[in-house]
Amino acid sequence: MEATLMYGAHDVRVETVPDATLVDPTDAVVRVTRACICGSDLWPYNSMPPSEIGNRMGHEFIGIVDAIGTDVRTVKKGDLVVAPFAWSDGTCEFCLQGLQTSCLHGGWWGGVTLDGGQGEAVRVPLADGTLVKLPVGPDHVLMPSLLTLTDVMGTGHHAARAARVQPGKIVAVVGDGAVGLCGVIAARRLGAERIIMLGRHADRIALARAFGATDIVSERGDAAIERVRELTSGLGAHSVLECVGHGEAMRTAVSIARPGGAVGRVGVPQETTIPNAQQTFYANITIAGGPAPVRAYIEELLPDILDGRIEPGRVFDRVTNIGGVPDGYRAMNEREAIKVMIEF
Amino acid sequence: MEATLMYGAHDVRVETVPDATLVDPTDAVVRVTRACICGSDLWPYNSMPPSEIGNRMGHEFIGIVDAIGTDVRTVKKGDLVVAPFAWSDGTCEFCLQGLQTSCLHGGWWGGVTLDGGQGEAVRVPLADGTLVKLPVGPDHVLMPSLLTLTDVMGTGHHAARAARVQPGKIVAVVGDGAVGLCGVIAARRLGAERIIMLGRHADRIALARAFGATDIVSERGDAAIERVRELTSGLGAHSVLECVGHGEAMRTAVSIARPGGAVGRVGVPQETTIPNAQQTFYANITIAGGPAPVRAYIEELLPDILDGRIEPGRVFDRVTNIGGVPDGYRAMNEREAIKVMIEF
Repeated sequence: MEATLMYGAHDVRVETVPDATLVDPTDAVVRVTRACICGSDLWPYNSMPPSEIGNRMGHEFIGIVDAIGTDVRTVKKGDLVVAPFAWSDGTCEFCLQGLQTSCLHGGWWGGVTLDGGQGEAVRVPLADGTLVKLPVGPDHVLMPSLLTLTDVMGTGHHAARAARVQPGKIVAVVGDGAVGLCGVIAARRLGAERIIMLGRHADRIALARAFGATDIVSERGDAAIERVRELTSGLGAHSVLECVGHGEAMRTAVSIARPGGAVGRVGVPQETTIPNAQQTFYANITIAGGPAPVRAYIEELLPDILDGRIEPGRVFDRVTNIGGVPDGYRAMNEREAIKVMIEF
Repeated sequence: MEATLMYGAHDVRVETVPDATLVDPTDAVVRVTRACICGSDLWPYNSMPPSEIGNRMGHEFIGIVDAIGTDVRTVKKGDLVVAPFAWSDGTCEFCLQGLQTSCLHGGWWGGVTLDGGQGEAVRVPLADGTLVKLPVGPDHVLMPSLLTLTDVMGTGHHAARAARVQPGKIVAVVGDGAVGLCGVIAARRLGAERIIMLGRHADRIALARAFGATDIVSERGDAAIERVRELTSGLGAHSVLECVGHGEAMRTAVSIARPGGAVGRVGVPQETTIPNAQQTFYANITIAGGPAPVRAYIEELLPDILDGRIEPGRVFDRVTNIGGVPDGYRAMNEREAIKVMIEF
């Protein structure tokens, strides 16, 4: 089968790899119908040291169950399923709490031992805990939005939850990528009164406004902090969604939260410390978040997608096939594209 | 009147200063009956650069109202009142949310412009928002416990709340000072099933056990982290109360929280960043806390003290008069005393 591998920074290749197969009785094999490239894939795209063997890539996919192990009970051959960006058993202490990204027996797609989502098929470990059957066909018009349940919509929702978004509150979103845009959707869905998007790309700003952003701050650094304060009577936002991960974004995020407010961080941190420890202390600002347990959120968000109440699939502004994946990385990295969908 | 001033590291003096007087119509003057020395007073005691004029010290006091300004409504001359460690108007957006330490018009005792609690009398700004009348006389047997409402009991409670202590959960307390010990009381009061105290001073450990600690970890650094993991099936504590403030304590605190857990920090941070940004991210650990809005907690905790359900006053293991304050600083700094009470 064909699959995507990364051999180093800016070195993404589509190659023939061994077919996905059942290994454990709890496995399923899923033939991928849709996948995508994630903003978090761009971190290794810009920093991965050269590798002889390459890493299998992709953690966002929808597909049709092709085979199941003898212990699999919740899905069957032919089902259309969505997979969260982490696999999990669904039964451990953390899964039962809805924190499947800390599953005691789970893990992450791709790398050197497992299939990734950016390929024709995937061996899915712990299929019962991981996969969710979709009540539509594989070419349904809502497929782009359903595909965001694998990561970005659930991640934006997690940022909003971690930042304690509530009705009537002021929310700021740091990062105008697909996750930040989904954060706007999530904040609006949870009842935010004002949603301030920090971003400066015209296409992304337009989408943020369509999703419910009420104010746009295009300044950077201290000027952005100042502008958010002006917009919030000098106090800052109740809830800040940090959807980037690099140090400057985190410094901005903690600086625009008001006393007693919260920062929900879902951007993968690129620094080893959290800045402004004293300022956030004196203002009783809560810092929460991490990898989103999107498996827990699929059931919550799915009805809103099926009913058309939210349209996160609009973050996809480019579609390609498996052969176009390397150029998709390039396009996202150069900000030509917000997010690239892969059709199989 | 006599009051305590700090002129630099290890230089605490009791001197005659101008009598406390009414300045604004919202002021009260309180004649102090009890006060104390705080662990946070030891930060400047060890680091304050030499000063010509000195800083007035003390932020924990109970006393009798001696005079009120023309706008004061909630207390009157002769009332016995307790003051939180920050003064606040009680009417601004943050006070109404119960975050009086971020009051838009409030502030902190002492320094170069205001009286401190470690003196014979205090001018109290915004008396209506700040002071709470006590329903007992000034020599009541519960006075030591009531005095902890000014700071350490409310601060321990804030750490427990910020760390989301709930019935049945495992709590770890970093720091065996008065705040950490009050954190043990707070954790037990909120229903924690197990309370692990990290400390190594025999007198403090004994008190922690009396307050409800179920396990003691006397190791330091990585060995302490390892020991807490052993005690928690390898997972860590649901809630961690950070009651110290220096970097090593915070590193320990974030390292012993389990995935999805929370660290409530009330120790004044001595570093400008929060450590382990990536580990806490991947584990979805929440970091919360700050200066405790003890004003908000006085009403909540007062009945438990009056009914004898909690006895935080046991953290006082030395009593002195105003003349003994400099030696009280020395004794606390050398860990001869846990916490020193001052009687007037």
